[in-house]
Amino acid sequence: MIDFNKLISGDRRTLARAITLLESTKDSDRALAEDLLDKALPHSGKSFRIGITGVPGVGKSSFIEAFGQHLIAKGHKVAVLAVDPSSPINGGSIMGDKTRMEKLSSMNEAFIRPSPTSGSLGGVAFKTREAIVLCEAAGFDFIIVETVGVGQSEYEVHSMVDFFAILMLPNAGDELQGIKRGILELADLIVVNKADGQTIQLAKAAVQQYTGAVELLTSVSLWKPKVVATSSLEKTGIDNVYDIISEYRTTPAIAGAFKTKRAEQNKNWFHKLVHELIELRLNSKKEYKDKRASLESEVTAEKKSPLSAAQDYINEVLK
Amino acid sequence: MIDFNKLISGDRRTLARAITLLESTKDSDRALAEDLLDKALPHSGKSFRIGITGVPGVGKSSFIEAFGQHLIAKGHKVAVLAVDPSSPINGGSIMGDKTRMEKLSSMNEAFIRPSPTSGSLGGVAFKTREAIVLCEAAGFDFIIVETVGVGQSEYEVHSMVDFFAILMLPNAGDELQGIKRGILELADLIVVNKADGQTIQLAKAAVQQYTGAVELLTSVSLWKPKVVATSSLEKTGIDNVYDIISEYRTTPAIAGAFKTKRAEQNKNWFHKLVHELIELRLNSKKEYKDKRASLESEVTAEKKSPLSAAQDYINEVLK
Repeated sequence: MIDFNKLISGDRRTLARAITLLESTKDSDRALAEDLLDKALPHSGKSFRIGITGVPGVGKSSFIEAFGQHLIAKGHKVAVLAVDPSSPINGGSIMGDKTRMEKLSSMNEAFIRPSPTSGSLGGVAFKTREAIVLCEAAGFDFIIVETVGVGQSEYEVHSMVDFFAILMLPNAGDELQGIKRGILELADLIVVNKADGQTIQLAKAAVQQYTGAVELLTSVSLWKPKVVATSSLEKTGIDNVYDIISEYRTTPAIAGAFKTKRAEQNKNWFHKLVHELIELRLNSKKEYKDKRASLESEVTAEKKSPLSAAQDYINEVLK
Repeated sequence: MIDFNKLISGDRRTLARAITLLESTKDSDRALAEDLLDKALPHSGKSFRIGITGVPGVGKSSFIEAFGQHLIAKGHKVAVLAVDPSSPINGGSIMGDKTRMEKLSSMNEAFIRPSPTSGSLGGVAFKTREAIVLCEAAGFDFIIVETVGVGQSEYEVHSMVDFFAILMLPNAGDELQGIKRGILELADLIVVNKADGQTIQLAKAAVQQYTGAVELLTSVSLWKPKVVATSSLEKTGIDNVYDIISEYRTTPAIAGAFKTKRAEQNKNWFHKLVHELIELRLNSKKEYKDKRASLESEVTAEKKSPLSAAQDYINEVLK
């Protein structure tokens, strides 16, 4: 059982156990997880949510290690959640190795959670949205959702955050980095990372290149994406990222649209949850499963047509 | 209203109207369509179902025009259904132009149906499976389901037919024809088309090439895929296709496994239908729609969390 008071007091071990409960495939755990979320929801919603993507090797972990410490120095509490679509088998290829954020993970004001493990029912995005709620209830006021630049996960992460940043290598055009043009258009911020040592000049050139690309690509909107160079090693540019995010949060037009954006995200989340919960219920409730199995046998034995079996099933499960 | 007696007597106009009813998005039509299918199902299942695929330009229409006439000459009744994933907007880019099967479409023993038009609820495969049932009830004993070699439609078509044929151009390797290796593995028959005029030698070489490929690619099974050259223009090889299909149907091991294969297809169809019917019901029944809209408003107005709204909805619709 999860001690709810410990959770909202910010106990990291309780938070970790609560997220594990979310990821459980056991029916009894699902019920507990939904109860817990119900209780946590009134305490949630007050964080700023940042999505971060970038190809493997761009230095996401080191960037988050540096940026997270900067946030904590500014008085914030930081939770880091990973969405890793490339690792359905064992989970956590991005961040399974916590030591990659050695300092950050040891700080009381930080909570780091690798990808959900395989076998969890529901989509990755489903679990991540739920995990955000728990982290917020536990008092974390900055939530970083990290994903790799592969597949659809950026779109999913974009749909659940307030601000979306893409990390880029200093020494390659976007083609080489496998960054799709569509992804670039999601960005509120482009971070050219590894702007240090031998690649500092390349990074400066890349900043110019992306600044030009942003002018070309982005349509008129409330916010023109910013481009910034950083070095996680030398901790340069990290404060600029923080300042840009502060500017974003305090831009009147953005702040005014903030509630609307979250409301829109919640609306979409509601519809996704409807589908996922129906799946979950149909696959977990014993009566439904038994009915489906017996209808399947009748279909296989040619005693019933697929259509009338499906109709019978629907009549059995839908009111 | 569809006159059911006219339908089972094989009236082509009634059949066409019945399929249009299937494709209707109106709630009242959906209920009528399901009733009609219920009545038609006991009269269905007695045809031989052939899937035909191939890239645009391979000559699917001319082949079906020639092969269909051959089937009719042998005493059969032929229905041709098109699945066109590439044409969601206006439907029927494969066969909207019926004149491409001019002779066949004018014959009383043939029924030709272009792709379903856009806007129809449910997947293309859903409608096609239902259309097969109606064609069978109308007495058509050969059903040809045609699709283009793009996307997932071959897999869908493969899952609903007894025999799967791929048409190939005589003058190109499979890479050039954009045929995926996986698709080749679905084939019971490879037809090298346009084996006439200047391309006859190329076609012969292609037959050898594909015969070799089949040896390499296919695992031990009840049936080794055949390769045949045809000319729709000169009507050569068409009788070979018919003979191969007859051989397939009368091979004892195949005939023995026939019922099992159909039972397996029906089982999968049942599970697909469950999903599609739930979608349809949730989107059509007024109480469900109203409930969902009011919950959506509550979510947008932050009066309810997405999760508890989804839970409320589920409790409202599931028994």
